[in-house]
Amino acid sequence: MNSVKSISIITAMFLLAGCNLHDHEPALTILKQGWFSAGGKVTHEKGTLDDVYKTDGQSIHYDHAVAFFQIPPHARKTSAVFLHGNTQTGRCWSTTPDGREGFAEIFLRKGFSTYLIDQPRRGNASRNAKEVSVAPMPVEQMYFDQFRLGRWPRFYEGVSFPKDSASLDQFYRQMTPDVGKQDMDVIVDGVSAVLEKSGDAVLFTHSAGGVYGWFAGIRSSLVKAVVAIEPGAFPFPAGDAPEPIQSKYLTLRGISAKPMEIPAEQFEKLTKIPIVIYFGDNIPEKHSDHPSSDYWYATREMAFEFAKRINARGGHCTVVSLPEEGIKGNTHFIMSDTNNRSVAEHISRWLEKNGF
Amino acid sequence: MNSVKSISIITAMFLLAGCNLHDHEPALTILKQGWFSAGGKVTHEKGTLDDVYKTDGQSIHYDHAVAFFQIPPHARKTSAVFLHGNTQTGRCWSTTPDGREGFAEIFLRKGFSTYLIDQPRRGNASRNAKEVSVAPMPVEQMYFDQFRLGRWPRFYEGVSFPKDSASLDQFYRQMTPDVGKQDMDVIVDGVSAVLEKSGDAVLFTHSAGGVYGWFAGIRSSLVKAVVAIEPGAFPFPAGDAPEPIQSKYLTLRGISAKPMEIPAEQFEKLTKIPIVIYFGDNIPEKHSDHPSSDYWYATREMAFEFAKRINARGGHCTVVSLPEEGIKGNTHFIMSDTNNRSVAEHISRWLEKNGF
Repeated sequence: MNSVKSISIITAMFLLAGCNLHDHEPALTILKQGWFSAGGKVTHEKGTLDDVYKTDGQSIHYDHAVAFFQIPPHARKTSAVFLHGNTQTGRCWSTTPDGREGFAEIFLRKGFSTYLIDQPRRGNASRNAKEVSVAPMPVEQMYFDQFRLGRWPRFYEGVSFPKDSASLDQFYRQMTPDVGKQDMDVIVDGVSAVLEKSGDAVLFTHSAGGVYGWFAGIRSSLVKAVVAIEPGAFPFPAGDAPEPIQSKYLTLRGISAKPMEIPAEQFEKLTKIPIVIYFGDNIPEKHSDHPSSDYWYATREMAFEFAKRINARGGHCTVVSLPEEGIKGNTHFIMSDTNNRSVAEHISRWLEKNGF
Repeated sequence: MNSVKSISIITAMFLLAGCNLHDHEPALTILKQGWFSAGGKVTHEKGTLDDVYKTDGQSIHYDHAVAFFQIPPHARKTSAVFLHGNTQTGRCWSTTPDGREGFAEIFLRKGFSTYLIDQPRRGNASRNAKEVSVAPMPVEQMYFDQFRLGRWPRFYEGVSFPKDSASLDQFYRQMTPDVGKQDMDVIVDGVSAVLEKSGDAVLFTHSAGGVYGWFAGIRSSLVKAVVAIEPGAFPFPAGDAPEPIQSKYLTLRGISAKPMEIPAEQFEKLTKIPIVIYFGDNIPEKHSDHPSSDYWYATREMAFEFAKRINARGGHCTVVSLPEEGIKGNTHFIMSDTNNRSVAEHISRWLEKNGF
């Protein structure tokens, strides 16, 4: 009786809330949300705790990942776990620079429980057991180019990025430094520990997070699919790596184009799950003398090589170049571009086709 | 027609979701959520951008605050803005160490739009324009005492903190280092900039955040009330500060007990808004030879002195010692203690009495 009453009151509230359906998205409904830390280590200083609390005898917990999660009503069996790239935190999957919904909200509406990770030594997961020097990063014009908003100071024509200065300000301020070295094992441990809490997951990765995602997919049987947004690098089976892609600009920028090689039986694990890799717009079809463009040319070529090797071994990897699908103007931040809903629909169709 | 249909489908989904009302809280309904950065600075390196992206000619955005916000249906006119204390981020107002709802969710359910701040140079707002050395913090046993979970290694009898090791692990891993010095102006600027986005607000502060909260209340006319959870320090009108509270342990720990003095006309501003200050349990009524207990004795005494001066000038400041209200066992983290709902109800009654 009591619970029936609560339901009606809440339903009434909800119907009233529905009046905003004309202007905006309908309200989000969330059964449970919150934060947790996952994985990580503990160390203890020698000695005994004293009255003035010197560090003797004291402990530090560190190197965990942190996740913000939201669970919708009737959540799908498979969660959506999101891993950011360089300079970013879990936040990059939520609000866009111009304040629209990100993939976190869009896939929540599609019934996925969402988990937004801050990788160990970044953002809310910055606790490190070593003294760390954090250098400032006055590199925003580089990122304007590297993230393919345009060629500084001009936006690409037709780019799917909001061109007002307030949005660019928000975009730059999303950046958050590493508090400590990026360490493959530490990050993959953290991501795997988040997966223990999320259960079976579609792992969404972005950029440098792509690399950690491949290894999380190799390590954790809970990764049931990977949606990689412009991953920065790819593993190859030992003895079957492609030739390095080299150019004047890659060399000048100190970017190693040597493909990673991993044991064949590790690579094999990636052939057991469906993988889709997305690339946006303004990536040239051949070497470019614009350094960032050249980088993306080389990276997408490596993606094609990676997919070939996955598929040659019976796996299922698709590389999607969005302009070929009629989705134009995308930057490196496909998940928050002005057309992110169209991309999300494309991903949804792929997920559906693969049984998610 | 179309929107009526959407409403019915969503309502149906919601009714089905309602089946979990017996086990948990009802679902949260959120009209809009997301992240933004607020305030901060920009600097530009001298020189011209080159092909290999040295830092010449590049910019850095930094020293902003970051906020995660959620807006419920029919939000109250006054938002709830939450500012963490030392070692913490906005996250400390959401999930509790044992995975229950925090003040963020509880006050969202009460119709407040919620804004969880990461102060500049912490967590998601870690971007600093200076090279910064971040020292590790093996000080968890100190915090066990200082945050009044107990006297390490024993919990206080009847403490309102979950005693399982997983919860303690989560509690420690909430801690996040400063990436740069805490700077009053930078933090108050950041908080004030968040307030520009939240509009009229009840400002909830915790611990060291309390100090920044007083100054945000002085600076921003958008602060309509302050709910201070165990603030660490208090300003006093110049010429009317109380005697410093001194003791062996305060001196040993290098804690300055000298009250801050501010111009009388600044202090005056705090007499124009209702203020409530909460203290938890296990705080002695006189000096203690247990260093953390002595700290809390001294701090609460200063709160009484602060309230006296606010009220003597026609203001409205109440200091609540929760055990006297029958709410027992609270640590320094009143907002996430096992009895946080009882505390939230106490705060709600105070808010209601003050017209919020």
